[in-house]
Amino acid sequence: MEFSEWYAEVLRSAEVMDVRYPVKGLYVWLPYGFEIRRRVIERLRRRLRETGHREVLFPTLIPETQLERESEHIAGFEDEVFWVTHGGLKELDEKLALRPTSETAIYPMFALWIRSHADLPLKVFQIVNTFRYETKHTRPLIRMREITTFKEAHTAHATREEAEEQVREAFELYSSFFEELGVPYVASVRPEWDKFPGAEYTVAFDTLMPDGRALQIGTIHMLGQNFSRTFEVTFETEEGEQEYAYMTCYGVSDRVVASVIAIHGDEHGLVLPPDVAPYQVVIVPILKKGVRKKILRKAREVREELSEVARVKLDDRDVSPGRKFHYWELKGVPLRVELGARELEEGTAVVFRRDELERETYSLSELPDVVPRLLEEVQENLRRRAWERFEERLHRAESLEEVREFVGEGIVETGWCGSEECGRRLEEEVEGDVLGTPYPEEREPEVERCPVCGEPAERTIRVAKTY
Amino acid sequence: MEFSEWYAEVLRSAEVMDVRYPVKGLYVWLPYGFEIRRRVIERLRRRLRETGHREVLFPTLIPETQLERESEHIAGFEDEVFWVTHGGLKELDEKLALRPTSETAIYPMFALWIRSHADLPLKVFQIVNTFRYETKHTRPLIRMREITTFKEAHTAHATREEAEEQVREAFELYSSFFEELGVPYVASVRPEWDKFPGAEYTVAFDTLMPDGRALQIGTIHMLGQNFSRTFEVTFETEEGEQEYAYMTCYGVSDRVVASVIAIHGDEHGLVLPPDVAPYQVVIVPILKKGVRKKILRKAREVREELSEVARVKLDDRDVSPGRKFHYWELKGVPLRVELGARELEEGTAVVFRRDELERETYSLSELPDVVPRLLEEVQENLRRRAWERFEERLHRAESLEEVREFVGEGIVETGWCGSEECGRRLEEEVEGDVLGTPYPEEREPEVERCPVCGEPAERTIRVAKTY
Repeated sequence: MEFSEWYAEVLRSAEVMDVRYPVKGLYVWLPYGFEIRRRVIERLRRRLRETGHREVLFPTLIPETQLERESEHIAGFEDEVFWVTHGGLKELDEKLALRPTSETAIYPMFALWIRSHADLPLKVFQIVNTFRYETKHTRPLIRMREITTFKEAHTAHATREEAEEQVREAFELYSSFFEELGVPYVASVRPEWDKFPGAEYTVAFDTLMPDGRALQIGTIHMLGQNFSRTFEVTFETEEGEQEYAYMTCYGVSDRVVASVIAIHGDEHGLVLPPDVAPYQVVIVPILKKGVRKKILRKAREVREELSEVARVKLDDRDVSPGRKFHYWELKGVPLRVELGARELEEGTAVVFRRDELERETYSLSELPDVVPRLLEEVQENLRRRAWERFEERLHRAESLEEVREFVGEGIVETGWCGSEECGRRLEEEVEGDVLGTPYPEEREPEVERCPVCGEPAERTIRVAKTY
Repeated sequence: MEFSEWYAEVLRSAEVMDVRYPVKGLYVWLPYGFEIRRRVIERLRRRLRETGHREVLFPTLIPETQLERESEHIAGFEDEVFWVTHGGLKELDEKLALRPTSETAIYPMFALWIRSHADLPLKVFQIVNTFRYETKHTRPLIRMREITTFKEAHTAHATREEAEEQVREAFELYSSFFEELGVPYVASVRPEWDKFPGAEYTVAFDTLMPDGRALQIGTIHMLGQNFSRTFEVTFETEEGEQEYAYMTCYGVSDRVVASVIAIHGDEHGLVLPPDVAPYQVVIVPILKKGVRKKILRKAREVREELSEVARVKLDDRDVSPGRKFHYWELKGVPLRVELGARELEEGTAVVFRRDELERETYSLSELPDVVPRLLEEVQENLRRRAWERFEERLHRAESLEEVREFVGEGIVETGWCGSEECGRRLEEEVEGDVLGTPYPEEREPEVERCPVCGEPAERTIRVAKTY
């Protein structure tokens, strides 16, 4: 089955999202999907709080004049902004934008909040919905007109060095967040022609979808003093002078959830990392006449015991075990405990691992020890497996032909002389997008020459087909 | 100080919200305020989940045709809807409303989700931002153009009885939620002329602000089959017939946070119930030359110990104890532990209670037992105190003159013959709003006659000045 077909089908049948909402690019989070989303968000939130980011919440609506103050920024977004023009039956005095991102909402307040160096660094984040009038093909969690989950962090610093240090902290934070979800990635400095509008440079995280196309799942922007000059975010230095703050911002979105689903899933449906699975264990009693009650009683006992060590669901619905197996495999529950007449007699249970589709029998008494261990193994196995597949699709190419050969299958690394002209030519020649140069910066490029002009390569450059 | 002045000042100085965002009726949640909000929301979310409500998330934008399908509903909202008319530079084919509430977004999906009686009851909720083009005076958390926190639940049932039962469940759920926050209330069936547009009837919770005006803090709507007929939410009964579902919906908003702030606060600032306080205990070391290090070391020890039983902040900033006292009183931290040279010597600490502004000395060794006990006492004391004040301002009146006398000071109960005419006359005569009749329904009205027409009273009716 093609990936995009599989993806649509699994979102539907595992009840992640409903795509039947009657507006292009807008979808409904179903309860099961919402639970996955919530767990992913909570992990990110915890990391942000632990690193001193404070949570805030800004309005959704941004006045036109404010959105347009940063000229590069608005140039980058003007085709994508939804505009509110009327309140009730009355036309508004000033149009209001649905935030496409919140720099222009937040930084005027930064200008009020920051007085002196003692107020710095300032590190805040919010988790909000943002809006983009997408004209391309929309797709749940990947390209939506309402991004339902946009975590954006914004920071201000006294020096360029501290802002650069913040970019590194954000890099570490996102790296470990993606690691935790078992989502493999490369981080690249985006080329000049593809950086965030208004930024000095952009570091982006890309993962690979099963169809070989790269998906941008996180970005970090070094803003330097660009926005602080526009929005007059100044502070008094220790020496008593007024200076513009150095700023950064970084974000991840619903796409993280999309990648968890797409990367770990298989032909039977979702395969969820235990850390974000709504249920980590499902108990399916195999009921048989005569011992029905006994089995159910034991199943409840097992649920009680396992609830101490995992999130457990006992499926005691009146449908066949086969249907339940299918149902919970589709939903990606990491472990299934099967309990039938034979197991009851022997004091055992069969444990099925969703990641490897393998069964093993354990004595009931050891289950409370076995389950947490297996959950850890599943978590680690998914991570390892995803990285292996990812690395298999990370190619190195010397010539344009080679780049072209691999570019539909994954990410291709080649040499780059460093000129924008060659970068753009490369994109045209191979019908791919330049992801950028490795971050953190490598010492020497592995490929010696730029495949476009033949000059010595200054950097490695990455190319892929992208979402 | 007048309440509205006090309220604005406490939001500012305790860093709850910043009102300087440059659009009328839109405000910024500051980190400290955000933490209070988060704890309030989490308590509500837990109650909803425990009672079988599943969390979902619907789009913010509702197509015009869909919003207008329920005619009474749209008539009630059309003056208040923000409209998105443009995407980028292009005019949209169909206008999109920023949800003022989500019935018209959700129920068309209910129509797809519900097939048979086995799918019922269906109980979902979401916590979202909603929008109202308010033309009245706006005020943070009380009347905003973007309601940042709207928890709306929506349910569908097979029978009218089950829907009525759901109204009662929602009543219990909200009652205990408000109790937990120490927010006193009366619940009233709103008069016909003030019910939710499209509902059969509305039960509303009102509390009292310190200025004597009533604030609606929660509503429950019995929708009957009104919306299910409009949106074709049908199901197959056990007998194989198609029937329209019976529906309810109920919501609370940011106003809950406003009432926690307004009701418990005093002239020194916020007074937070321990359950929702970002910090429950602040430790302030009283540093003195010579024993400075010793005191700080002990303060850290105390923080470690108390962290096991409460959310603790050690304020070791280099500013005077007096300033710290003032700062944390403003922020409403329930308990302050003061630790100075004398206490160090004696092995004691002074504990200051924010609710009663009283100090008491305890031995350090008993603190881990004392603190949780005091927190419970504060929680209970705030609740009790708030209810006492509330009941003092719940008046009974026999005549229009009496109603008029009390109506600016609180909620006035009088008799009502039951006619809309008298209800509306009452509002005009006393320059107040009818809140409705008591819910659950009382047996006999306490006041015998309708003060407008003099006929025998059928019900008690409540009147107040409202927000």
